[in-house]
Amino acid sequence: MSVPLAPLELLERSRRGETVDAESVAYFVRNWFGGGATDAQMAAWCMLACLQGLDSAAVAALTAELIATGDRLDLGSLGPTGDTHSTGGVGDTTTLVAVPIAAALGVRVAKMSGRGLAHTGGTVDKLEAIPGYQADLHLADFVRQIKDVGCAVISQTDRLTPGDKRLYALRDQTATVQSAGLIAASIMSKKLAGGASAIALDVKCGDGAFFATPEEARHAAELMVSLAEPWGRTVRWMATDMSQPLGGAVGNALEVRQAAAVLRGAGPPDLRELGLRVAAELAEASGVAPVGDGLARAEATIIDGTALAMAERWVEAQGGEPAVWTDDDALPSAPIRLDVVAPHDGWLAALPARALGEAARRLGAGRLHPSQNVDPAVGLELRAKVGHAVTAGEPVIVVHARDMALAEACVANLATRIVVSQTQVAAPPLIVASDA
Amino acid sequence: MSVPLAPLELLERSRRGETVDAESVAYFVRNWFGGGATDAQMAAWCMLACLQGLDSAAVAALTAELIATGDRLDLGSLGPTGDTHSTGGVGDTTTLVAVPIAAALGVRVAKMSGRGLAHTGGTVDKLEAIPGYQADLHLADFVRQIKDVGCAVISQTDRLTPGDKRLYALRDQTATVQSAGLIAASIMSKKLAGGASAIALDVKCGDGAFFATPEEARHAAELMVSLAEPWGRTVRWMATDMSQPLGGAVGNALEVRQAAAVLRGAGPPDLRELGLRVAAELAEASGVAPVGDGLARAEATIIDGTALAMAERWVEAQGGEPAVWTDDDALPSAPIRLDVVAPHDGWLAALPARALGEAARRLGAGRLHPSQNVDPAVGLELRAKVGHAVTAGEPVIVVHARDMALAEACVANLATRIVVSQTQVAAPPLIVASDA
Repeated sequence: MSVPLAPLELLERSRRGETVDAESVAYFVRNWFGGGATDAQMAAWCMLACLQGLDSAAVAALTAELIATGDRLDLGSLGPTGDTHSTGGVGDTTTLVAVPIAAALGVRVAKMSGRGLAHTGGTVDKLEAIPGYQADLHLADFVRQIKDVGCAVISQTDRLTPGDKRLYALRDQTATVQSAGLIAASIMSKKLAGGASAIALDVKCGDGAFFATPEEARHAAELMVSLAEPWGRTVRWMATDMSQPLGGAVGNALEVRQAAAVLRGAGPPDLRELGLRVAAELAEASGVAPVGDGLARAEATIIDGTALAMAERWVEAQGGEPAVWTDDDALPSAPIRLDVVAPHDGWLAALPARALGEAARRLGAGRLHPSQNVDPAVGLELRAKVGHAVTAGEPVIVVHARDMALAEACVANLATRIVVSQTQVAAPPLIVASDA
Repeated sequence: MSVPLAPLELLERSRRGETVDAESVAYFVRNWFGGGATDAQMAAWCMLACLQGLDSAAVAALTAELIATGDRLDLGSLGPTGDTHSTGGVGDTTTLVAVPIAAALGVRVAKMSGRGLAHTGGTVDKLEAIPGYQADLHLADFVRQIKDVGCAVISQTDRLTPGDKRLYALRDQTATVQSAGLIAASIMSKKLAGGASAIALDVKCGDGAFFATPEEARHAAELMVSLAEPWGRTVRWMATDMSQPLGGAVGNALEVRQAAAVLRGAGPPDLRELGLRVAAELAEASGVAPVGDGLARAEATIIDGTALAMAERWVEAQGGEPAVWTDDDALPSAPIRLDVVAPHDGWLAALPARALGEAARRLGAGRLHPSQNVDPAVGLELRAKVGHAVTAGEPVIVVHARDMALAEACVANLATRIVVSQTQVAAPPLIVASDA
């Protein structure tokens, strides 16, 4: 059809389960941005997307329209460029590990991040736990820093895909966030406008993630790969476990400490593995490392200290205190610490990610209302992970809090959430699917 | 649960397919009317209602909240009162036939009607094709006319269920009209607030109707009966065929001509049958005719001219030109007429109601945007109905249009929609289910 459908016709046909051509979807989205379709019509369409799905042509049309609402960065003069994205998890501080490693390998990392959403943390909130860190750079300064230092991580700017921000706010208010097509368009519009030529996607799945199963994660990942193809970008993806939090902490400064430990050659094995893997994917996809050699080269940057040195230069360039990578006391800490202990000997069998994310949010590490400030110091320190042997009375979680009543409520809540089994439990695999 | 859900929680749970208690639904609807929930949230909920359905407690809660947004009419002083409703079809001008017949039998008919919705026509749009007809009466004048003349048909007033009008507008713009629960709540809130003691419901089913099958129509009808019971009203219902348009026209002035023909003792047999049946149900349910005798008495009002005289008094009382009932030239007509002809000899096998309704809408007989004015003159004249024998080149449909390009596009479109069979085809039954 050469004449696009009117918004109402598009909604009628979609509701009846009929296919709608991509040009009509583009026209609808443009109309919404221009005032020719209402918020109510867009909300109805988003609910249809949640319940019936969107075909890939519709998602591609939406993505292109989101990109068209703002500028696009041209990073062509920078050489091999990379960007990463995680679909959102609990304790997921992978960016803070992967960015300096990839940059140390020669990938120019141009990353824009978001703030915490619902029970999941946001990279900008974590970086702002670093005293002095400036996440709101002008785009010219962002590009200059990538050129001079090798990487930069800033807050999503309104100059790029402002339409995505408007659509996200509508979805957030109407319980229509959870659609693979809408999620893919939102992520990829930002990544494509951001200009990097290699993109590594970490699609979380499990209890604490937007995707429940590896199959759903694969579907979303493959959709995102297909969206990038016409734009000439290389996307690598992996689906990773979010049945328990990643790493050893949930909370902003606590997670920065975890990332710092990994860059110093220690830290939690799962966070180390994922950070290395994401950096290796970027290095291979952007061509700075031969295929198959990325992981070994990434590991070498930790051993030889180049990743740590890059992390220091990066944070310093953005006004932050570089000592956070080597001195845990350079980060804010909370006055109250209470333990959640193992009720008996056994193996830790459940450390449910969503419940822990919600608990950390209630302590102040996240937001219960969009205008709320986060408290950088509070959160949960995880002394054991699923599959670890624990003994009765041993701390499994340490609650870091500013308020005793909140801390006690948190301990009481989490004591009912953790599960200790009397038979041995295997640690869940970290990477559950990938394009490899 | 004693604490109602917040709007976002209600949407999240409903999207996940979980049951939501009636008090939370009432709270959500009240919040929307009060500004505590947005149009986007209500649109998302309406789309959920379309795709997942609403339980009867939710529908009853919505109905009560809609009624509570306005006044309720008390018609107790008028004697036997009646009201009718059709769930919306194509070419459905039954009201214009049934109202004067029932009034001629002594039922005080107090009817408020709507405008066209989606591809279906609206009684108010049809009445406004009558030069001078005033559909917007004050309620005091409405009641006085019923008392003095015997009937009145006005546009839905903002004094009664203004909330329904607001919700209807939102559903209309978001393609969320088609939900049995939302339809039942909308209809019955208006009928219950309108005050008549006997209510006849015509529930359309088939391709051109909001309900696809007699089973869906029965479900909606029984839902409406159950909503009326606590209010002490008598509801009669029938489910009627909408696989093809009713009568011999689709379009406002064209349909008024059809109704006039029936009142003069001629006109299309299906429109005549349905108009008589609705009037008979009202006469029996309100007690002005003994049960079993309504239909014969209704037929007598056509033969003796009392129905036609009532129609003239009614239209004149509302400022309209009473000659429309006897002089076709008293109605507006369109300058362009093009034929859609039978491609070969045979029997007309399909005259799809929805496609014809959409075609008439594109000609200007309905609205593609809520603020659009309808053109009273344009539409489709049906020279044959399903089951009729036709010969090659004979006009099956005459397109009445104001614009040649639209007319030609309409003919090209409809030529692909009508089906002529070379084997004999039976006319579909008109009444497919009822409470009888």
